[in-house]
Amino acid sequence: MASSGAVSKIKVGVLGATGAVGQRFVQMLQGHPWFEITALCASERSAGKRYADACNWNLRGDMPAHLRDVILQECEPGIDAQIVFSALPASTAGEVEAAFAAAGYGVCSNARNHRYDDDVPLLIPEVNPEHLALIDIQRRQRGWAGFIATNPNCSTTHLVSALHPLHVRFGVKKLFVVTMQAISGAGYPGVSSMDILDNVVPYIGGEEEKMEQKEPQKLLGVFDGQQVRYADFVVSAHCNRVPVRNGHLEAVSVEFEERPSEAAIVQAWQEYRPLAQQLNLPSAPQPAILYNAAQDRPQPRLDRLAGSVPGMATVVGRLRPDPLLHHKFMVLGHNTIRGAAGGSLLNAELIVAQGYLGPEAAALAQSLEVA
Amino acid sequence: MASSGAVSKIKVGVLGATGAVGQRFVQMLQGHPWFEITALCASERSAGKRYADACNWNLRGDMPAHLRDVILQECEPGIDAQIVFSALPASTAGEVEAAFAAAGYGVCSNARNHRYDDDVPLLIPEVNPEHLALIDIQRRQRGWAGFIATNPNCSTTHLVSALHPLHVRFGVKKLFVVTMQAISGAGYPGVSSMDILDNVVPYIGGEEEKMEQKEPQKLLGVFDGQQVRYADFVVSAHCNRVPVRNGHLEAVSVEFEERPSEAAIVQAWQEYRPLAQQLNLPSAPQPAILYNAAQDRPQPRLDRLAGSVPGMATVVGRLRPDPLLHHKFMVLGHNTIRGAAGGSLLNAELIVAQGYLGPEAAALAQSLEVA
Amino acid sequence: MASSGAVSKIKVGVLGATGAVGQRFVQMLQGHPWFEITALCASERSAGKRYADACNWNLRGDMPAHLRDVILQECEPGIDAQIVFSALPASTAGEVEAAFAAAGYGVCSNARNHRYDDDVPLLIPEVNPEHLALIDIQRRQRGWAGFIATNPNCSTTHLVSALHPLHVRFGVKKLFVVTMQAISGAGYPGVSSMDILDNVVPYIGGEEEKMEQKEPQKLLGVFDGQQVRYADFVVSAHCNRVPVRNGHLEAVSVEFEERPSEAAIVQAWQEYRPLAQQLNLPSAPQPAILYNAAQDRPQPRLDRLAGSVPGMATVVGRLRPDPLLHHKFMVLGHNTIRGAAGGSLLNAELIVAQGYLGPEAAALAQSLEVA
Amino acid sequence: MASSGAVSKIKVGVLGATGAVGQRFVQMLQGHPWFEITALCASERSAGKRYADACNWNLRGDMPAHLRDVILQECEPGIDAQIVFSALPASTAGEVEAAFAAAGYGVCSNARNHRYDDDVPLLIPEVNPEHLALIDIQRRQRGWAGFIATNPNCSTTHLVSALHPLHVRFGVKKLFVVTMQAISGAGYPGVSSMDILDNVVPYIGGEEEKMEQKEPQKLLGVFDGQQVRYADFVVSAHCNRVPVRNGHLEAVSVEFEERPSEAAIVQAWQEYRPLAQQLNLPSAPQPAILYNAAQDRPQPRLDRLAGSVPGMATVVGRLRPDPLLHHKFMVLGHNTIRGAAGGSLLNAELIVAQGYLGPEAAALAQSLEVA
Repeated sequence: MASSGAVSKIKVGVLGATGAVGQRFVQMLQGHPWFEITALCASERSAGKRYADACNWNLRGDMPAHLRDVILQECEPGIDAQIVFSALPASTAGEVEAAFAAAGYGVCSNARNHRYDDDVPLLIPEVNPEHLALIDIQRRQRGWAGFIATNPNCSTTHLVSALHPLHVRFGVKKLFVVTMQAISGAGYPGVSSMDILDNVVPYIGGEEEKMEQKEPQKLLGVFDGQQVRYADFVVSAHCNRVPVRNGHLEAVSVEFEERPSEAAIVQAWQEYRPLAQQLNLPSAPQPAILYNAAQDRPQPRLDRLAGSVPGMATVVGRLRPDPLLHHKFMVLGHNTIRGAAGGSLLNAELIVAQGYLGPEAAALAQSLEVA
Repeated sequence: MASSGAVSKIKVGVLGATGAVGQRFVQMLQGHPWFEITALCASERSAGKRYADACNWNLRGDMPAHLRDVILQECEPGIDAQIVFSALPASTAGEVEAAFAAAGYGVCSNARNHRYDDDVPLLIPEVNPEHLALIDIQRRQRGWAGFIATNPNCSTTHLVSALHPLHVRFGVKKLFVVTMQAISGAGYPGVSSMDILDNVVPYIGGEEEKMEQKEPQKLLGVFDGQQVRYADFVVSAHCNRVPVRNGHLEAVSVEFEERPSEAAIVQAWQEYRPLAQQLNLPSAPQPAILYNAAQDRPQPRLDRLAGSVPGMATVVGRLRPDPLLHHKFMVLGHNTIRGAAGGSLLNAELIVAQGYLGPEAAALAQSLEVA
Repeated sequence: MASSGAVSKIKVGVLGATGAVGQRFVQMLQGHPWFEITALCASERSAGKRYADACNWNLRGDMPAHLRDVILQECEPGIDAQIVFSALPASTAGEVEAAFAAAGYGVCSNARNHRYDDDVPLLIPEVNPEHLALIDIQRRQRGWAGFIATNPNCSTTHLVSALHPLHVRFGVKKLFVVTMQAISGAGYPGVSSMDILDNVVPYIGGEEEKMEQKEPQKLLGVFDGQQVRYADFVVSAHCNRVPVRNGHLEAVSVEFEERPSEAAIVQAWQEYRPLAQQLNLPSAPQPAILYNAAQDRPQPRLDRLAGSVPGMATVVGRLRPDPLLHHKFMVLGHNTIRGAAGGSLLNAELIVAQGYLGPEAAALAQSLEVA
Repeated sequence: MASSGAVSKIKVGVLGATGAVGQRFVQMLQGHPWFEITALCASERSAGKRYADACNWNLRGDMPAHLRDVILQECEPGIDAQIVFSALPASTAGEVEAAFAAAGYGVCSNARNHRYDDDVPLLIPEVNPEHLALIDIQRRQRGWAGFIATNPNCSTTHLVSALHPLHVRFGVKKLFVVTMQAISGAGYPGVSSMDILDNVVPYIGGEEEKMEQKEPQKLLGVFDGQQVRYADFVVSAHCNRVPVRNGHLEAVSVEFEERPSEAAIVQAWQEYRPLAQQLNLPSAPQPAILYNAAQDRPQPRLDRLAGSVPGMATVVGRLRPDPLLHHKFMVLGHNTIRGAAGGSLLNAELIVAQGYLGPEAAALAQSLEVA
């Protein structure tokens, strides 16, 4: 884990490094221009073992060679890092993340536990960067040296990413969404092959509630200097599991405050260049939203890795009139990259760039980018 | 093709007998109590060949042994049959079916060509048996000795079957439906494995139009003695192809004239016993609709063959409140059985039972049933 | 669980009734002419619960309605049954089965624990019914009132079934076999969808050892009145897991004592009518082996349920010369029916018919069959 | 199609550019250091159309933008190119390739038509670069200004690649191979999803013949200055189609002249650094063979893109003793990259480097590499 160059990077740890999302963090952090893994943490059962021995690597390509011999640590403050990425299960994430934040770490979490806390940002850098101001409130209220920032659920992420430029211009009022979600969204071993081969399962525990009642409304809500006032559109969600490895596909129908033309919607997507893209954050796809005009796209296999940073963009297509609401279209995005580890990673990049990790980290990042 | 017993049955032919739907007709007619295959017809290219030579049998189990040596005939009137089941492609079905009807045959068609003709019944026996009266009008207007009756598209069939008992009691007003359709719906060879393995294709040509504008409204329309007045609810449909062999799964949200309770909806499904079931038609499932209360059902693999006549029932489940409309639920049904060949077959049974093939055929059917 | 008729049947219990193989036992015993389930046993964790509550039913069709309310018992002698079918995992099967046998039950086991015991029959009724004589030796040596009989591993079952009529006539000398095994062979949840979707896994723990060193040689061995002298042909096995739900497909090359013609091999398969078929045992398929002459068969989807008792026959095809050995061909069979629960069930039928459960049971079975 | 830099590259054309293999050629030639596409040719039906209009692009990522507007030409000499890559179907490849070779083009073909011609090299650069000398004989005998060189069938390629270093050291004598081949090997639309979902098809037309009688023996044969004397080992092959998108997996058992230790085999693979790797050809993977010591590898999903040039390496694993022959192991390789387009491309690179396209092309390539 020695630094690969003369200039040292920002030290980061991964909590839950052996699981499916943990592996994605490790994969995406490999060769990252700003961050360097200095600690891998896992459950008590795995702590003390070599990473290569405790982790059943399940991604294409091999485990990064220089991490094979790293000894896994327990998920407790004391590790050598400034930022920790949390891929912990909900059963333990709540307390562990709070402990790290209290101890001064910047916690970028993919777990759902703190997403709906009033003083914790639920963040998509393209969508609601101003919500980061909650970090100051969080620190003040809780007396923490560090902080927690979270990214939304995989299905919500791409839905809201596609809606954001439309919401800004036309105001989302009503929303139907039916998801067809990939098996990797359930982790590993996750979905039994006996349940999904030649089948669709029309139920994913807790998923519809997240999409209908909480996440889109918080993400598209307005920060008034004190708190986030939730957006008040209505969402109806049906969530399904399909036999696809990666990539959540969503059929969306939407009604706006005022009905825009199809051309206006396409324009809103194509002109979309939010802060994360303006800042050229290392993991920010350029552009953030890809509009595919073909009549049968997006498709998971063909489009889940589309764009300048594979797996980070949201792909939209099949825009057409909706007989009930105004318009309908399809949304696709990679669920374990942008929808999980990549979401946390981009959050961390924004956090560093905006100075929430301190001016030194921000300056270091800027210098590394230039280099 | 000799009769298996002393009493002869009603003679039927299959048009397009070598294709995917044609094979289903042949499979479902095997051992039918009323009907006996006396002619198999195919394209010019196949006519003159043995059925076993021209047909690449693709269903589980072997081709019925007694049909292997049958010589395929061309799709022209003159064959020895009273009813013909049409599994013809849309490119040829229009004219061929009209020729058969003009020549005195009762044509039960799965093709879309005549579905929307004003004087042709688009029929689901449980839903709109009174539309059969269009046959008299059709014969009178066209001067045909025979007639054409059609069954709806596979996706529409199960959607409307699930809605019918609700529409009768509560009045459907608005409808949102997203389908996840099986590959067999595209016939054989149909969908390339390169397109669908590890993928979902969010487009099926012409499917959304059928579901939004025509079929549900005609099926649930009122026959006023002269014509069918289309029902006027609004439908929004998204149609998708998923890597499932058989069984179309549909996510449905619906708004009624007045909001019923969930219990009232379940009761409407469970008390549903329409004419086809009262008549005990041989292919009518008992009950017509199966309500599954488990939170993760229906599923294609587990439920597509559920019920008393495998593949003929419609399965519903996951009933829950919808934040935008009134209720949401899932609908599942077998697409090549009830959604295609089985739909035509049940239509033919109702037609015979109601006397549209003449009193002798009706009496024969009754006698065969008793035996 | 009351008897469905006036005549009572032979009482049977199922050990491990909630698992994948246990469910198959329950499914296959439904409506069995000789046997009636009088006890369902499961792990300590499930004992005391209703079967419907403890068991996540995973087979097509619903759990038999009359068993839903049955209270699960622990896997200990004392249950009301003469025969127990064991679907226990290897971790507990060894001792539990021995306890039942000692207590007087006839144990028909699908577990591997006792398969290779010198005094325990490893049985395929068509192949080595004379090995049942080991039961007498077993009882004498172990002082047991009951006994244990086992069926082979799923891959071995169909391989040896296909070889048996050839071995009898031509003498198998060398054998090369590569399996492509279905996911259901690993139970439930078994194989993660993450591991097998769009993939093949070229490793199944312990499988090659069973096929190379033990099972085929014991099954085709000769019982000399005291013991089974193992057949001494050599087997090379490669075992693979493929994304197929049910049905193990095996590519086989074989060398005999003397090279038979292809016609002689086909004749041996087609004339095959061993004891189980002669006795007309209820679960014995007629015929035992199906030879399919098409160039691209057998295939799992099309052939796994072929024959008179679905899932119980072995299907062979693609017979052709082998450049290295004598002949090559494909073997297919259902792995959780004949390869597991159905194998044990047919064993039990032979055991009853041959009088190993006592003359009363044999007489009862005979009377039930006649009725 | 303007050159991307100041230095012009070697001009190449693609015959059959719209098909599955043709698209791979286009994809792999994008950004190639030596070659630049200057002509895309297709069937009469497509000639004259824009590439974007005539080609249903099926690979991940979009069609190269600068080729979208290229007008497709007919497959006839006259195009502006020195090398043509042939992805033509066997029905037309024979004559068309000969016409191009006669007219002075270097034809690098993936078609099977000329593979077994005595004076045409069947080439894997790592295995038999000395067979390129056949080009001189071919030109002399046929009076051609150009030439044809071919690459083997996808299944043969990786099998022989894995065997070559062993054959050199230990001498292959007998060989069993059972393939589990990906659907992409059949092109597009190729295998119907109806045939392969939840299934294995144990038959691929002509495949076993190629592997048993011709290709391995020619590839590993000795060029004696006049002709290739075929190696004389015996091969038994079973070929199967499995529901995997890309990557052919092969179970291999082999007997050598003398039995090497397992360590010696691993060493032979690990020390393997043939000419193509020594020359650092742009598409030559480093190393050519990847040995994976895990007990359950290689697997198509995890390993088909392994190595320094994705899809070009051969991956071996699961080495263990074989009870019948000497050793058994698994071989995996990408079938449409190294097994098709990539094989032809690497052949072309060797041909250029060895001067068969003339000294200028060789010098140009060398200069481009340095740059």
